[in-house]
Amino acid sequence: MFKNRDVISILDFSREELERIFELAREMEAHGKKKINLLEGKILATAFFEPSTRTKLSFETAMLRLGGSVIGFSEVSGTSLAKGENLADTIRMLDAYSDIIVMRHSIEGAAKLASEVASVPVINAGDGSRNHPTQAMLDLYTIWRELGSIDGQSVALLGDLRYGRAATSLIYGLTKFNVKRIYLISPPLLRPRQEIMDFLKKQAVEIKEGENLGEVIGEIDVLYATRIQKERFPDPSEYEKVRGSYRIDLEVLEKAKDGLIIMHPLPKVDEIDLRVDSTKFARYFKQAAYGVPVRMAIISLLLGAGGD
Amino acid sequence: MFKNRDVISILDFSREELERIFELAREMEAHGKKKINLLEGKILATAFFEPSTRTKLSFETAMLRLGGSVIGFSEVSGTSLAKGENLADTIRMLDAYSDIIVMRHSIEGAAKLASEVASVPVINAGDGSRNHPTQAMLDLYTIWRELGSIDGQSVALLGDLRYGRAATSLIYGLTKFNVKRIYLISPPLLRPRQEIMDFLKKQAVEIKEGENLGEVIGEIDVLYATRIQKERFPDPSEYEKVRGSYRIDLEVLEKAKDGLIIMHPLPKVDEIDLRVDSTKFARYFKQAAYGVPVRMAIISLLLGAGGD
Amino acid sequence: MFKNRDVISILDFSREELERIFELAREMEAHGKKKINLLEGKILATAFFEPSTRTKLSFETAMLRLGGSVIGFSEVSGTSLAKGENLADTIRMLDAYSDIIVMRHSIEGAAKLASEVASVPVINAGDGSRNHPTQAMLDLYTIWRELGSIDGQSVALLGDLRYGRAATSLIYGLTKFNVKRIYLISPPLLRPRQEIMDFLKKQAVEIKEGENLGEVIGEIDVLYATRIQKERFPDPSEYEKVRGSYRIDLEVLEKAKDGLIIMHPLPKVDEIDLRVDSTKFARYFKQAAYGVPVRMAIISLLLGAGGD
Repeated sequence: MFKNRDVISILDFSREELERIFELAREMEAHGKKKINLLEGKILATAFFEPSTRTKLSFETAMLRLGGSVIGFSEVSGTSLAKGENLADTIRMLDAYSDIIVMRHSIEGAAKLASEVASVPVINAGDGSRNHPTQAMLDLYTIWRELGSIDGQSVALLGDLRYGRAATSLIYGLTKFNVKRIYLISPPLLRPRQEIMDFLKKQAVEIKEGENLGEVIGEIDVLYATRIQKERFPDPSEYEKVRGSYRIDLEVLEKAKDGLIIMHPLPKVDEIDLRVDSTKFARYFKQAAYGVPVRMAIISLLLGAGGD
Repeated sequence: MFKNRDVISILDFSREELERIFELAREMEAHGKKKINLLEGKILATAFFEPSTRTKLSFETAMLRLGGSVIGFSEVSGTSLAKGENLADTIRMLDAYSDIIVMRHSIEGAAKLASEVASVPVINAGDGSRNHPTQAMLDLYTIWRELGSIDGQSVALLGDLRYGRAATSLIYGLTKFNVKRIYLISPPLLRPRQEIMDFLKKQAVEIKEGENLGEVIGEIDVLYATRIQKERFPDPSEYEKVRGSYRIDLEVLEKAKDGLIIMHPLPKVDEIDLRVDSTKFARYFKQAAYGVPVRMAIISLLLGAGGD
Repeated sequence: MFKNRDVISILDFSREELERIFELAREMEAHGKKKINLLEGKILATAFFEPSTRTKLSFETAMLRLGGSVIGFSEVSGTSLAKGENLADTIRMLDAYSDIIVMRHSIEGAAKLASEVASVPVINAGDGSRNHPTQAMLDLYTIWRELGSIDGQSVALLGDLRYGRAATSLIYGLTKFNVKRIYLISPPLLRPRQEIMDFLKKQAVEIKEGENLGEVIGEIDVLYATRIQKERFPDPSEYEKVRGSYRIDLEVLEKAKDGLIIMHPLPKVDEIDLRVDSTKFARYFKQAAYGVPVRMAIISLLLGAGGD
């Protein structure tokens, strides 16, 4: 079911498969920070053509806790790619050296291409602006763990829903479950692209679009915030104008449901007031920590060490 | 006594605690380069916001020889900090992934802040210009090992006593013992800051300040040299003028005590004549090597694997 | 025979020693990607003063598969060298921390100097433009494995035979065996330097120089291509003029011997048509993969864990 598969898009996984991953992640979580020697002697290669700290260290930690080792690179300067090597050749090298490849790339489709070249499993740790499947898995896992179920929840995605691959991947992932409603709250410039909206229309999922968090905060169970990059706006003053409507502070939370959870793929900058960190709503640090057991689960399943 | 403590400043440690660390480092040293599996399955995270080779590799070697593993980063570009993440959030991530955090930062107080955020022990591997506690520990250990005792020694610190965190930390550390006298030999511009001088006045330690090594070389047991950075001088010609007075060569050593030991936190540039390397006085390479057992000792104590 | 030796140049090894390495590499290869705990607890230090991906990851993979660990650095910025430390001091540090040092440097002779300073074995992973001994070992191993023997083969080296250290090292290595003939096919500007030609004249080896691959393709058993860097030509139009004569495509291969193998130290850019990758001739990916068992063999021999 999982052995030797690649992880390119969250859309490639069924609800049942995602739940299998969640169950195993739950078991991994129970070990705390203790090492379990499931993958002793295995090598995970990280190929980060685009920089990352959180995702890369999370995968490395997952592999080390499973008893394996890590090789890899995290920037293109100093690699053979800087000398003009094509992606396929770089992947062939890692394929020879490692048992599993985790890859991030700026270009959409790079992970798919890599998976066709490599004989070992390839995990897409983000390529282009749509797919970051293990982020979606850990996001879904966070809802599942914190609220007991994904079905029936009202989930709002806030901020940059156009360029952020975490938001798009989560939207994809949510359609595998029976959520009550998905709220898309973003400035007009950062609306999800048409293809995403078309995809959502084909699913049996209720969508509500808006531009103001305050108007919907009382209706939602999950608030998934993302970073808005100033650079997305042609005119900086445009950004300053809208910015307040997408900021989460204590004031807007006054109208929140009691059981609301706030998530964020991190890093966050100033889209969440620091005082929110210590409220009962904040789950983004826990969410980041869940990245390790979820990735332990998926790595061990792909390497045939997590049952089938 | 040590378990779960943070290591922020050498001043936080009593003489007894330092001696406990030395005794354990001595035991670690006896294993040579052999791995001892005290920390099998534990993960050390290095968070080097400022570059370093020697200190970082020394910690990594220490952790590997204890049977543990290492994750981390060593420059800010490519990290989530480059995306504007605050220090606390970065530390929370490492706190979730690792069992102990080793951190270097340019800003004084950064390690203290990190220790307040993290639940795992934080070791300050240098922040600002005052604190680098494990460097002070290994420096004190070197005197203890090479001369049998720190008490009763005359110790001269030479060069940049103002900006170098190694020199300041060693001054702090020496006040925990009954040294005979501390000599501070530096150009006027690189004298220790007033706060350090005030601190020293409050201790029962005899201080002698000077600008010329030759005048005191015959009286001292330990000569601790540091690198003088030309950039500290407003006028390069100023630097050229004083530089000879702080250079250690065979000539100045003719008047040295027989048992004098020369130390240096390294890297050194031209403040020590290369011919000094092969004299009986030179201990800086040994000192650097002592970094590993001393760090093995402190890491295992903090993680509760070194006794109590 | 091997224990504690340094690996500076392929010329330091006899035919018998190279064959001993090949035999052990063959055994290592038989383990596939499985870890064998020959070097449990040992630490390999990588000191890459010049960037590299393939060679560095290949050594790291070799060490991890042998059960050891890896520390190191792969760029000078951020190291103590950037602060002006001399090479000997950097090596002394690694010597204290590790059990074996693998080093790449832009300056010829750097590895030799390092080996004189270090008490642990030093492996030259490329310095200057002549020596890259483990690349030559894996290249020779590839011929030995793929063709059954190095003796009697006609080997053509193609492209940059002047600045590429892989080509020069392989030329050196081939002279240890009884090859039938060595073809040197390169633009006049990229001919081997006079010292190499003089060296070859002293060996009992038949040399044939040329400027066109097409003229010799039918006579050779091994075609070793290298990357031609445009920057080597004073005038870019010069480069464009000659480039076609050194490009390997399906057309030129029509006249090839049936059993021809094509090798390349990689990374390759456009000197080999991508359609060649899937022909029976292509062995460069296999060759790259052989780097791991060959390096496992040499590392374990130097550390006394591979027999004597």
